[in-house]
Amino acid sequence: MLSLRGAVRFGETDMMGLIYHPNLLCYLELGRIAYLQAQGITLEELLAAGITFPLRDCQVTFKAPLTYGDEYEVRTTLLDFNRAKMVFGYQVLRLKDGRLAAEGRTTNVFTDGQGRVLRLPSPWCDKLFAALAGEKEGGHA
Amino acid sequence: MLSLRGAVRFGETDMMGLIYHPNLLCYLELGRIAYLQAQGITLEELLAAGITFPLRDCQVTFKAPLTYGDEYEVRTTLLDFNRAKMVFGYQVLRLKDGRLAAEGRTTNVFTDGQGRVLRLPSPWCDKLFAALAGEKEGGHA
Amino acid sequence: MLSLRGAVRFGETDMMGLIYHPNLLCYLELGRIAYLQAQGITLEELLAAGITFPLRDCQVTFKAPLTYGDEYEVRTTLLDFNRAKMVFGYQVLRLKDGRLAAEGRTTNVFTDGQGRVLRLPSPWCDKLFAALAGEKEGGHA
Amino acid sequence: MLSLRGAVRFGETDMMGLIYHPNLLCYLELGRIAYLQAQGITLEELLAAGITFPLRDCQVTFKAPLTYGDEYEVRTTLLDFNRAKMVFGYQVLRLKDGRLAAEGRTTNVFTDGQGRVLRLPSPWCDKLFAALAGEKEGGHA
Repeated sequence: MLSLRGAVRFGETDMMGLIYHPNLLCYLELGRIAYLQAQGITLEELLAAGITFPLRDCQVTFKAPLTYGDEYEVRTTLLDFNRAKMVFGYQVLRLKDGRLAAEGRTTNVFTDGQGRVLRLPSPWCDKLFAALAGEKEGGHA
Repeated sequence: MLSLRGAVRFGETDMMGLIYHPNLLCYLELGRIAYLQAQGITLEELLAAGITFPLRDCQVTFKAPLTYGDEYEVRTTLLDFNRAKMVFGYQVLRLKDGRLAAEGRTTNVFTDGQGRVLRLPSPWCDKLFAALAGEKEGGHA
Repeated sequence: MLSLRGAVRFGETDMMGLIYHPNLLCYLELGRIAYLQAQGITLEELLAAGITFPLRDCQVTFKAPLTYGDEYEVRTTLLDFNRAKMVFGYQVLRLKDGRLAAEGRTTNVFTDGQGRVLRLPSPWCDKLFAALAGEKEGGHA
Repeated sequence: MLSLRGAVRFGETDMMGLIYHPNLLCYLELGRIAYLQAQGITLEELLAAGITFPLRDCQVTFKAPLTYGDEYEVRTTLLDFNRAKMVFGYQVLRLKDGRLAAEGRTTNVFTDGQGRVLRLPSPWCDKLFAALAGEKEGGHA
């Protein structure tokens, strides 16, 4: 599990006075990218190798509203990985009261520049297999 | 079912060269708002009455990539409505080849200014009950 | 001059209840891209030729607020072009009352993939020289 | 002068591979809000008092490109303040090489809920007069 903290930006709100909901997906992405970085995998090196990893599936449940200035923590866990895809789970906490603001789950696939699915090569896949094993032991990323 | 068309804006892409995925949620919202408008319900009048309708839950599956300039059609269907919430289903088509770009499902709840869930009053609820009945008969919004 | 119409999206607002101001720059860009398309120049063909055109400078004055649902018209004019850069002027009208919502001016330079400034080759530059001549005659794009 | 640091988010890029330029205005806003907070003025208390402060004018010059992951520093200075408006100047530095990525200048006016210009009341105006005096002495916010 990897923990990332931030605060809701003014520009992330909408006229209902709360965070504009698609921005929650941006927070999950911040968590996902930080998780990969913690395993020693950067977006830049994947992109330089011609590997992209579009989202295949996402699911988010909104539990408690976030609004401007609210500090949040994204807790990201690798739930599954099999070289063709990676599945992450997320909890977003609202820090002022510790309530769960949102929960989510995403699946990314690995593709080449033409959008064809590929299998993530070494050494990246080794790092994610190790991370997955660590998660199953209840370890932290 | 309500159909809405548009084209991917340049600013909706990211450096992987495709639409930045949270923008898909924006498209679903465009479809949802257009659906409500087609029933004679506007955001402005709900907001003026102190009624907001935050997203409670969303699920999106990405099937075929959209990129800059791609024309799309959002097909929005009211799947369920019970005064406390409304559930919409969506199909996003990529018009250049008719492929399904994404499918989704969202649940919104109705709340007052303090975030407490309320039951949507008349005449709005009548319009949505009528729309739901129309959907079940296979009619178009 | 090229005219483009649209309506403010819900997701383009912020918690002050008006359009979030950086989105005005997006509208200017929609106008700019539409102007280029009207001259027979598409972003896709420039990008395919390895030509990008980052913004060098922008200036916007906000005159009357736009909010959710407001229909607007972006009037885009090519003010200057010299193969190394293009300068556009913009007026954004609020259609419900015809008031000027914003005025702006942008300069884009042409660069190669490494960010080096280049001179826009034919036939694209010919099209923009023709557009500029048309503007000076008071013609419409 | 107030300094704020951050890093370009993946979702802030576009398909040209650089930061999508309207996001620069978001960075300036982050700097502006942080500056106000450093003077003991929060957005929340202004909004609670019915005071909004829409942007009246902005000007940005882009000097060196920012892309995904680039760390930046926004240096915000209060250039002018007279109760009806506040003028800020900005420098955005690209930290990897210390180059100036962008320079900007914005003017905000203070308005009530109906968009009418008002004069910022005490104690807020006192704090900004003090900040302005501090800037003129070359002090830091």
